[in-house]
Amino acid sequence: MNIPQTCFPRVVIIGGGFAGLAAARGLEEQELQVVLIDKHNYHTFQPLLYQVATGGLEPDSIAFPLRKRFNDVENFYFRLAEVTNIDADQKEVQTTIGNLAYDYLIIATGSTTNFFGNTNVQKYAMEMKSVPQSLNIRSLILENFEEALLTSNLEDRKKLMNFVIVGGGPTGVELAGALAEMKKEILPKDYPDLDIRLMKINLIQSSGELLKGMSSKASEKAEDFLIKLGVDVWKNLRVLDYNGDVVSTNGEDHFRASTVIWAAGVKGEAIKGLPETCLIERPARYKVDAFNKVVGLPNIFAIGDVACMQSESYPYGHPMMAQPAIQQGKLAAKNILSELKGKALKPFVYNDKGAMATIGRNKAVVDLPKWKFQGVFAWFVWMFVHLFSLIGFRNKAVVFLNWMYNYIRFDRETRLIIRPFKNKNEYSFQEK
Amino acid sequence: MNIPQTCFPRVVIIGGGFAGLAAARGLEEQELQVVLIDKHNYHTFQPLLYQVATGGLEPDSIAFPLRKRFNDVENFYFRLAEVTNIDADQKEVQTTIGNLAYDYLIIATGSTTNFFGNTNVQKYAMEMKSVPQSLNIRSLILENFEEALLTSNLEDRKKLMNFVIVGGGPTGVELAGALAEMKKEILPKDYPDLDIRLMKINLIQSSGELLKGMSSKASEKAEDFLIKLGVDVWKNLRVLDYNGDVVSTNGEDHFRASTVIWAAGVKGEAIKGLPETCLIERPARYKVDAFNKVVGLPNIFAIGDVACMQSESYPYGHPMMAQPAIQQGKLAAKNILSELKGKALKPFVYNDKGAMATIGRNKAVVDLPKWKFQGVFAWFVWMFVHLFSLIGFRNKAVVFLNWMYNYIRFDRETRLIIRPFKNKNEYSFQEK
Repeated sequence: MNIPQTCFPRVVIIGGGFAGLAAARGLEEQELQVVLIDKHNYHTFQPLLYQVATGGLEPDSIAFPLRKRFNDVENFYFRLAEVTNIDADQKEVQTTIGNLAYDYLIIATGSTTNFFGNTNVQKYAMEMKSVPQSLNIRSLILENFEEALLTSNLEDRKKLMNFVIVGGGPTGVELAGALAEMKKEILPKDYPDLDIRLMKINLIQSSGELLKGMSSKASEKAEDFLIKLGVDVWKNLRVLDYNGDVVSTNGEDHFRASTVIWAAGVKGEAIKGLPETCLIERPARYKVDAFNKVVGLPNIFAIGDVACMQSESYPYGHPMMAQPAIQQGKLAAKNILSELKGKALKPFVYNDKGAMATIGRNKAVVDLPKWKFQGVFAWFVWMFVHLFSLIGFRNKAVVFLNWMYNYIRFDRETRLIIRPFKNKNEYSFQEK
Repeated sequence: MNIPQTCFPRVVIIGGGFAGLAAARGLEEQELQVVLIDKHNYHTFQPLLYQVATGGLEPDSIAFPLRKRFNDVENFYFRLAEVTNIDADQKEVQTTIGNLAYDYLIIATGSTTNFFGNTNVQKYAMEMKSVPQSLNIRSLILENFEEALLTSNLEDRKKLMNFVIVGGGPTGVELAGALAEMKKEILPKDYPDLDIRLMKINLIQSSGELLKGMSSKASEKAEDFLIKLGVDVWKNLRVLDYNGDVVSTNGEDHFRASTVIWAAGVKGEAIKGLPETCLIERPARYKVDAFNKVVGLPNIFAIGDVACMQSESYPYGHPMMAQPAIQQGKLAAKNILSELKGKALKPFVYNDKGAMATIGRNKAVVDLPKWKFQGVFAWFVWMFVHLFSLIGFRNKAVVFLNWMYNYIRFDRETRLIIRPFKNKNEYSFQEK
């Protein structure tokens, strides 16, 4: 991998998401060599992927080049590669571009879509965990509308205009809201010949409430907002299968739909090699102690979505979202430095800053530790927090500009099929 | 194609580039039915493709959704399709989504890369005529640098860092300049471990001057600027072949390079079906009369790059660029309306507004009919003209913001490999 051997201990970080980035920042300018490995050359701001999928934002403005972030940092190395195996005995990671020894390893690989073993759903449903996947959804939505225009068969047209989102967490709720706004403001103008009433947006949630983990007020209000926007919310309904044509459920309702977006679960993106005893099988997260060390492996930390730190307050580990990832990344960096200096490590205490979700224009729900509110003000808070959290001035500025434009003009201009997903051609994308 | 038959004559326009868009605008709100067919659902602002390829701009900000442009226009239809054949006897076009009869046909398919029959070059060299192609170049440049970091073989590293641009027209010159600025400002920061002196940018031109068609002052100054930026300019050198490894020429110089960008020629994107006598074989443009009617076919117009109107001042037809396309599009629309009203048609007279090219920061050349100038002021003029010509307020604003940012910070932040081109993976792109 062409990384020099120095007298400094080497820390290898796998993954440049929220957790990995926070850890890398915490290790800057120390007597250490830091190697960050990611399969993309950019950091993805996942909370805004749904806006890329629905034509509201350009993909490049929610991605930030990882190399740039560490341009001026000494002893820092970035490698574009996928880690295929970890050999804890040899203290070595194996990657698509060679092997690399480590003194400390930080696993920050995040999470991936959990299809719960349903290969049909995996084959036919869309997922939205990366920029290319979001662009695929964007292409598919628009391609389906183009196709709906052409068919004279009403049932086929209904199928093409039927959208099923499985999972009522923040991803599902935000995506359903954004699609509903496309239905309201964009698609009737672009497709005046289509009866827009045929477009259905179904949000299916297996339990009795949306936004599980947020307050019941937030959950109710989010549902309220969605229904006002014309989304059909199905609660206590479980999707059993999707064969590319029909979504079957455990209830009486079946859905004939061309587009199914699976936002019903995530699992840790665990890597081969560590002993099975380190893994919590469902959902494939590494068991870590209070210092984020993988149990039984003193030199390996796991942080963020891929780590499961079980405690009294969080018997199933912390929520798989940005805040625990960032906080664990920061602390893991500090603890590595402490350990090298022979100091005592500090256990992780999650500072829950709350949660929020946006449903549409002027419609958001915010749960702060001491204050829960919904509506216009919540929406501004949501915007401010997300804008502020984006990395890089340029990204912030371009996103702000797009939001202002979209807000004032009731528009979304990035409704472009750059790489067709469905009707593959020379510009297509190889595989889902 | 699900387009209603009305009492109005139907005008079918193939292609939503500069020419097709100008024609469509000229036919708005008339007693006509207009059908615009394009294989993309967006208009591409081709003059800025090179900035997408070199990480300076986001692809979405130089593309504009075609449907949006005609949202409020009565009797206007857009169809996303590729035209496969024209049947002039039946007055019908055949497309990937069905057949469509026309009363008037406007062919505005533009141009495509001309490899002059060299299948090797076609297979291994990159082209830059569309947004996805530009994104491929962007991915390839960055992937080559990532790979150069890894190899310990000096010759391989040199090859990966060697860039050959064939063709010294505006595309080649602008791309070479942009690459040279990446070499100066971006790549040494992102790849501090690579010896940036190994990076070579070769611009090969078969004739004795760059920017053929512009003034000799512009040509000389452009060469001057390029050399100052560190580009190796090779004049009077003809590329004979490229086998994916070595570029061979008719001179003594050969180039071992991983990246070859072919900007040495374009040809009309002619469609099958019209009699061969309508085509000028090299470079596959339709012969048109002074009204842009394809010779011998009274109901078919060809405009823009795909049309060749031979005259005393332009024995080989007009230059294949935006201005003649826009002017011909406007006039073709007027002439169709005149013909329908039984009025006399007006012949096309090209109003040559001049030409310009940018080489880099503060470095551009501008030839106006009465004034030719180069340098900082030319660069501001170039920026202003291009910004003003972009379609849509949002695109203008985002491009302006990016340019300001890049100018002030000496930076380009969209150096992202969203879909890898070379080391294909699950996010890749199917074919070149």
